[in-house]
Amino acid sequence: MVDLNKFFEFLSIQSISSEPKYKDEVRKASHWVMDYLKSIRFKVDLWETKGHPVVFAERIVDPKQPTLLIYNHYDVQPVDPLSLWKSPPFEPKIENGEVYARGAQDNKGQCFYVLEALKQLQDDLPINIKLIIEGEEECGSPNLAPLIKEKKKALKADYVAIVDCGIPSLERPAVNLGTRGLVTFDIEVEGTSIDLHSGAHGGIAYNPIHALVKLLDGVRNDNGEVTIPGFYNDIVKLPEEILQKIDFTFDEKEYIKTFSAPASGGEKGKSALERLWLRPTFEINGINGGYTGDGFKTVIPARAHAKFSCRLVPNQKPEKMGELVKHYFENQKIPGIKIKVQINHGFGEAARSNANSKGVKAFHQAYSDVFNKPCKYILEGASIPIIPELAQVSEAEPILVGLGLVTDQIHAPNEHFGVERLKLGVRIIKRAIELLKEPT
Amino acid sequence: MVDLNKFFEFLSIQSISSEPKYKDEVRKASHWVMDYLKSIRFKVDLWETKGHPVVFAERIVDPKQPTLLIYNHYDVQPVDPLSLWKSPPFEPKIENGEVYARGAQDNKGQCFYVLEALKQLQDDLPINIKLIIEGEEECGSPNLAPLIKEKKKALKADYVAIVDCGIPSLERPAVNLGTRGLVTFDIEVEGTSIDLHSGAHGGIAYNPIHALVKLLDGVRNDNGEVTIPGFYNDIVKLPEEILQKIDFTFDEKEYIKTFSAPASGGEKGKSALERLWLRPTFEINGINGGYTGDGFKTVIPARAHAKFSCRLVPNQKPEKMGELVKHYFENQKIPGIKIKVQINHGFGEAARSNANSKGVKAFHQAYSDVFNKPCKYILEGASIPIIPELAQVSEAEPILVGLGLVTDQIHAPNEHFGVERLKLGVRIIKRAIELLKEPT
Repeated sequence: MVDLNKFFEFLSIQSISSEPKYKDEVRKASHWVMDYLKSIRFKVDLWETKGHPVVFAERIVDPKQPTLLIYNHYDVQPVDPLSLWKSPPFEPKIENGEVYARGAQDNKGQCFYVLEALKQLQDDLPINIKLIIEGEEECGSPNLAPLIKEKKKALKADYVAIVDCGIPSLERPAVNLGTRGLVTFDIEVEGTSIDLHSGAHGGIAYNPIHALVKLLDGVRNDNGEVTIPGFYNDIVKLPEEILQKIDFTFDEKEYIKTFSAPASGGEKGKSALERLWLRPTFEINGINGGYTGDGFKTVIPARAHAKFSCRLVPNQKPEKMGELVKHYFENQKIPGIKIKVQINHGFGEAARSNANSKGVKAFHQAYSDVFNKPCKYILEGASIPIIPELAQVSEAEPILVGLGLVTDQIHAPNEHFGVERLKLGVRIIKRAIELLKEPT
Repeated sequence: MVDLNKFFEFLSIQSISSEPKYKDEVRKASHWVMDYLKSIRFKVDLWETKGHPVVFAERIVDPKQPTLLIYNHYDVQPVDPLSLWKSPPFEPKIENGEVYARGAQDNKGQCFYVLEALKQLQDDLPINIKLIIEGEEECGSPNLAPLIKEKKKALKADYVAIVDCGIPSLERPAVNLGTRGLVTFDIEVEGTSIDLHSGAHGGIAYNPIHALVKLLDGVRNDNGEVTIPGFYNDIVKLPEEILQKIDFTFDEKEYIKTFSAPASGGEKGKSALERLWLRPTFEINGINGGYTGDGFKTVIPARAHAKFSCRLVPNQKPEKMGELVKHYFENQKIPGIKIKVQINHGFGEAARSNANSKGVKAFHQAYSDVFNKPCKYILEGASIPIIPELAQVSEAEPILVGLGLVTDQIHAPNEHFGVERLKLGVRIIKRAIELLKEPT
């Protein structure tokens, strides 16, 4: 049903978009995708950018039929720490029905079942299909937004399906109604001009690591709420009618079993999935300063750094939130400490799709049919920055779908994706395409 | 007055004790010291250890006269980053009256003026002299404490002078009345068993970096005081009579000029040198967790780490303080977070010498006489772990002296020591020995 050799070929390409040394591998992956699509009779184009290229492909079978635009990405996350991988990240391996490799799920696996579905439909495609498969999703899609504005005409569609999402479990199929936005930051705090000896200066020099932990700890209160003024101001509530359709079931026991820790983060007094789906966050993603090697060095370093990010919900504008957070930190006063915050590019807004739209309904039906189970609606805590922009440019209804599971270890060592899900994915894409066909 | 050729010979030996590849050079330095002492009629012994050897030497001229034991070390710090040295670290060079070389001050320079003073006194030594010159000070003296317990009889003395300290400036000669102790720690906080995606888990997983900054920020209040219960309990105040003799003059402008930041750390309401000399500290020396490379990775890591240390003041026992701090952290409750603290070996107690003791008074007088200025008393914020142990084993009064300046760049590139100070050092040692002679 699916060509695993072909899939392994795709997974073997080291298309890590955020690391410059993999530039050629990223391009190689774009060519792999192009060749695949050419072989199934798509008209293919490679759109160059300042960074990695975007594969665009289309097959117009009948102008009277609707056009479905599908979004995927062929780039992957970095692999470090490499030592934690049980098998090399770019040498795919099957174990207990799961394919282990970087990108096995995110997003090469989800891209691959789309390709395989289109291959199976190649002699009998009922609607028009366009594909946009980018190579910079894992580094924030910095060049995609300006590019698609230029390519508005090519991208025109009726529906745009972003196949980069997940389901709660194989027993609980679901279609996604929205993602969170994202804005990321780097903070540097600086004390003295040189590193100091903690004996000769301890008690007089203000240690920048202390300043950093004070600043970062200072943004939350004991209820887990972010205390940056204005942080929650722009949030708008989902209409009650939509809220009713969403499955907020969260299995805490399963979470503990999978991750060896409870879902104890976030704001007190709100349910797990409310915190994950409907609330913005402030998350420290990296911190470093001073001596961190073997043994000990009694140093007071000159500088300390952290990386942090905020997930955003609809109506929270990334630019505005970025400035709000930067302004907050840079206006904190710690004597002798300089604070610099950099807002990173690749803002992404939160996205919402409409449960009552024809496209979402077709996919919802396809999930029910293929799984032979009632399909639910869910939301997503992660971000796919391009969704709102792509929906706007293509003038198409966004549809957020996928078969990821929370246990797939995406962005982590030992990422994996089930062979069974590859097969289900092929059937869902085929079924949805069939359902989108207008009667003639 | 001093044999600079001989000094340069000593400085040219690459006796870096912490790097195994310099093992032979360290031994060469021990032999250089032995040969020097033999040539001036000392009885010399090389005490082997599991690491680098200790030079012991003695000259007993008159059993009725007191015995002064002198401590120095012949090993030096590593030299990296080598690129920042203006001339090679083991090719001593004189510029503007300063000798530039690794060890020029710490401690070969301060050892050399002791040797030169003893050479000049060799035909007319008024008291008994013992010397213990070790080769592992710069890697924490791991073998010295057990060794000296075995050598108690040989080390018996009336006074023990540790010649590894400094003075505020050439205009402000001073004798040191004490150092701080030290205990160091590693802390690990763990959340989930694997790294998580901050989109898929942000708001539900408790981020260990947040836990770490909360824990580390939580040990201080807004006055810069450490809030760990019992942290300040064992401190004993210096008698008012001694406090009166200490020079607490601190030049904030000079500090800002040198380090590009004010002396804004430590407890509010206490003077700079009180914080540096008479108060214990809690200092984070290193922190790391999550992604800290180029670009950005939206990870919630499984673990985060820090290294921290406490400088201690007299009567604060390192073992007790270690357990107190470890217990405090390990008993903090953060849901979903495991906290582990490791206390590191190499504890060092704070040391105090007695301003009213005969030995300290003799050196105090020697400084006044040689500098022809009133000599002050100072303290030291750093730690010399061997002092209390050496004082105990030798049953001698400790005396902490030296001619280091804060601008000597010890432990850093371009370490230097003035030729003028070598000459002053010779005169001070000779004068103090003379003053320690008992009338016959």
